[in-house]
Amino acid sequence: MTGLERAARLFDELALNSSDPPGVTRDSFGAGENAAHAIINREAELLGLETRKDVIGNLYVTLAGRDRSAPVLMTGSHLDSVPHGGNFDGAAGVLAGLVLLERLASGPVPSCDVTVIVTRAEEMIWFPLHYLGSRAAFGLLPPNTPDTLRRADNGRTLADHMTQEGFDPQAIRNAMPLLDPEDVLAFVEVHIEQGPVLFEAGLPIGIVSSIRGNIRHRYASITGQTTHAGGVPRRARSDAVLAGAELVTVLEQHWLEVETLGQDMVLTLGEFTTDPAQHGITKVPGLLLFTLDVRSDSSSVLEAFEAVLQAEVTRIAAARGVSINLGGKTQATPAPMTSRLQDGLAQAAQKIDVPHMRLPSGGGHDCAVFAELGVPSGMLFIRNENGSHNPEEKMVFEDFAIACDVLHQWALGMLFPDV
Amino acid sequence: MTGLERAARLFDELALNSSDPPGVTRDSFGAGENAAHAIINREAELLGLETRKDVIGNLYVTLAGRDRSAPVLMTGSHLDSVPHGGNFDGAAGVLAGLVLLERLASGPVPSCDVTVIVTRAEEMIWFPLHYLGSRAAFGLLPPNTPDTLRRADNGRTLADHMTQEGFDPQAIRNAMPLLDPEDVLAFVEVHIEQGPVLFEAGLPIGIVSSIRGNIRHRYASITGQTTHAGGVPRRARSDAVLAGAELVTVLEQHWLEVETLGQDMVLTLGEFTTDPAQHGITKVPGLLLFTLDVRSDSSSVLEAFEAVLQAEVTRIAAARGVSINLGGKTQATPAPMTSRLQDGLAQAAQKIDVPHMRLPSGGGHDCAVFAELGVPSGMLFIRNENGSHNPEEKMVFEDFAIACDVLHQWALGMLFPDV
Repeated sequence: MTGLERAARLFDELALNSSDPPGVTRDSFGAGENAAHAIINREAELLGLETRKDVIGNLYVTLAGRDRSAPVLMTGSHLDSVPHGGNFDGAAGVLAGLVLLERLASGPVPSCDVTVIVTRAEEMIWFPLHYLGSRAAFGLLPPNTPDTLRRADNGRTLADHMTQEGFDPQAIRNAMPLLDPEDVLAFVEVHIEQGPVLFEAGLPIGIVSSIRGNIRHRYASITGQTTHAGGVPRRARSDAVLAGAELVTVLEQHWLEVETLGQDMVLTLGEFTTDPAQHGITKVPGLLLFTLDVRSDSSSVLEAFEAVLQAEVTRIAAARGVSINLGGKTQATPAPMTSRLQDGLAQAAQKIDVPHMRLPSGGGHDCAVFAELGVPSGMLFIRNENGSHNPEEKMVFEDFAIACDVLHQWALGMLFPDV
Repeated sequence: MTGLERAARLFDELALNSSDPPGVTRDSFGAGENAAHAIINREAELLGLETRKDVIGNLYVTLAGRDRSAPVLMTGSHLDSVPHGGNFDGAAGVLAGLVLLERLASGPVPSCDVTVIVTRAEEMIWFPLHYLGSRAAFGLLPPNTPDTLRRADNGRTLADHMTQEGFDPQAIRNAMPLLDPEDVLAFVEVHIEQGPVLFEAGLPIGIVSSIRGNIRHRYASITGQTTHAGGVPRRARSDAVLAGAELVTVLEQHWLEVETLGQDMVLTLGEFTTDPAQHGITKVPGLLLFTLDVRSDSSSVLEAFEAVLQAEVTRIAAARGVSINLGGKTQATPAPMTSRLQDGLAQAAQKIDVPHMRLPSGGGHDCAVFAELGVPSGMLFIRNENGSHNPEEKMVFEDFAIACDVLHQWALGMLFPDV
C-alpha cells in the first residue's frame, strides 16, 4: 500500500467514524475529535513512527532524524470539525503529513526530526477562542481559560472536558510552554482552501501569502420593545429588526468603501435571529441576536472597522430607542507567511511542474500562531470546490496527491539541501 | 355581587385557567380556548341567560327581548390568545358584554334580543386565516378551509381540531351561513387598545374610526449559499442576511415616504431568523426566514406596498444572486366603522361625562367582518399601557368599568330611544 492509498483509506475511516448527516461532526475535546486522534495515533504506530501526546492533548507523530536535538521540521493541522462540516477541513493537512513521513521513512535518514503535529480544538464553534490547542502548546492562553471557557453546545468548561479525556488543564493555568518556537525549524500547514479562488482559477494548489486576522462579536444583541404589530404607530416602536437591518446596511457600505480602496476585508453576520421563544408575525420584534465576524490581512482595517461599528451602534441606538450590546469580542492578529518559505514552496511546486498561485487565507489556521512566534511558517492550500464548514466541501483526491508531492519536494529541499 | 365584581372574578378565573408564564395561552380550538368558553357558558347559565353554541363553536349568550324575531343588538369578542399573551385581549369585550346583559336584565325588558357573541379563533397565530370564527359564522370561508388550514404549532387541520371538540366542519365545507347580517341590528365590540395612543393621550376609552386592513406573508425566505466566512471573497458570496437587511431598509424607506404623504401604514417583520440548524458565526448565512405584516386603513396603500415589495424582491434577488420567496399571502380589507354608530358611542360617552377620542384600530378585529357585511358596526377601545399580544398588557380595571358604562349607555339609547 502506498502512502496515498493509506491516506484515502484513512479519509474514509475518519468520515465513517464521525458521520452526522449531512456531513461529519468531530467535536473539540469530545468523542468526535478523540476518535479521529485515536485513528491517526494507531496508524502512526502501525507505521513504526514515534507518537507522543502532550498533557493537553495535542498529538505529535515523529520520524526520527540523525540529530535528535536539532530544530524539528514540522507540518500538521487539526482533526476537529464544525457540526455537520466536511471531512477534509483539517484532516487533509494531518494525512498529508503522514504521507510525508511514510515517504521520508523509505529514503535516507533526515538530518533532523520530522514531526506531524495534530492540534486540538481549532474550530472556534466549540470553544470560542482562537487556535486553542496550538496556543496552549506554546503556553499562550490566559491562565483562567480552562475554568472560564465553556463549550458552546453544552456549557461545560474546558477544564471539565480536558479532565474527562485524561488531559491536564493545570498546564494551561500555569501558562506552561510545552513547545519552544526555537525548536521548530519551519512549519508548513497543508489545508483545503475554504473559498473558491483556486477552483475558479483552475489551479490544484495555492501558496498562502498571509492568514487574515479577525475581530468577532459572538453574543451581540439589539433590545427594543415587543409590542403589537398593528396597534403601535411608528414613532412609538423600538423595533430590533429595523435597527439591525440599518446596522447591517451601513456596515456593508463601509465594506464596499474599504474594497474600493483596494484593502482586504470580509464581513459576515452568520447568525441573525429574532427570539424564537417570543417572536411572531403580529409582534413588533423586541430582541435580535446576532454574531459578527470581520477579517482582514491588515490590522488597521480591522481597527477602523471596529471604530465604525462602535460609532454606528451608538448612533443607531440613540436614533431608534433601542439598546445595542455587542458583547465581548475576540481578536486574532493578521499573520503574514514567511517570504522565503513562500518562495521555497513555489520552487518545490515549479520543480515538479505543479501550476499554482499565491493567495491570502480568509480562514484562521494554527499556522498563524507559529508565524506570530517567529517560526518560519507557510501554508499550502488545496483546491476545494464548495467551500468548507459545510457538508458539500469537495476536495478532489488528485489535488490532495499533488499537495503531498509539493510538500514532499519542499521537505526534501529543507532536509537534503545539497541533493 | 355587581356585574363588575363578577367580571373582576371572571378575569381572575380566566387567567388562572390559562396561566403559561410569562402571560396566558389560550389556543384556538384547543384546551385553552375551550376552558375559557366553558367558564363564560357556565356563568351565563348561572345568570339565567340563554346560551347557544353554533355548530362551529361560537357561543351566543342572549338576554331575551320583547320581539324575539326582531334584529338583535349584538356585542362580544373572542377568548383565544396568542402564546404567552395578555389576559384582557378579547376577554375584556366578552366580559363587558356579560356586564351589559346583567345590567339590562335588572331593568325593563328590551325591545329586541341582546346577544353577546363569543367568537372562535380570532388570533391568527394558531390558524393563519383572518377572523376565522366570525367569517365562518357568516358562511364566508373557502369550502376547503377545514381540510387545508392547519394549526401552526401542531400541523393538525382545522377539521381535526373542530371534530375533536365536537363541532362540525361540514358547515364550513358547505359555506353554510349560521348568522344573517340582516338579523343584526348593530354590533359593537369592546376591546383593549393594542397600542399606546389612549395611554399617551390620557383618555380611558376611544371610539374606533376604522379597522386597518393588512397583507401578510407568513413564510417568506431568502436563499443564498452557505459558505466559509473567511475564505470566500465578497463577489463570490450569496449572503441571505445582507440581502434581507437591504430589503428591510428599502421597505422602511417606503414606509417613511407613505407617512410623509399623510397616509396610514405600519410595517412589521416580526420573525427574522437565520437557520438555527445550520447557521454559525463562521458561516456566510445561506438561509433567512422571515414574516411580513403591513397594515393600513387604505386599500390603495396596501396595494402600493405590495407592488414595491414585489419590485424590490426581484431587484435584490438579481443584484445579489439570492432567491427570495415571499410564500403565500393573506389579506384583510380595511373596514371603516359606521359613522352614525361612532356618533352614537360618542354621545353615550358625553352623556356620562367620559372623555374620549376617535382613533383607527391597528389590530384586526371580528368587528371588521360585521362592518364589511353592512351591519352597523363600531368598536370601543379601552386604554392599555403596554400594548397587547404580550404578557405586560396592562388594562386598569377602572377603565374597563368606564367602557362598560359607555356600552350600557349606548345600548339603552338603542333599546329605549324615547327615554
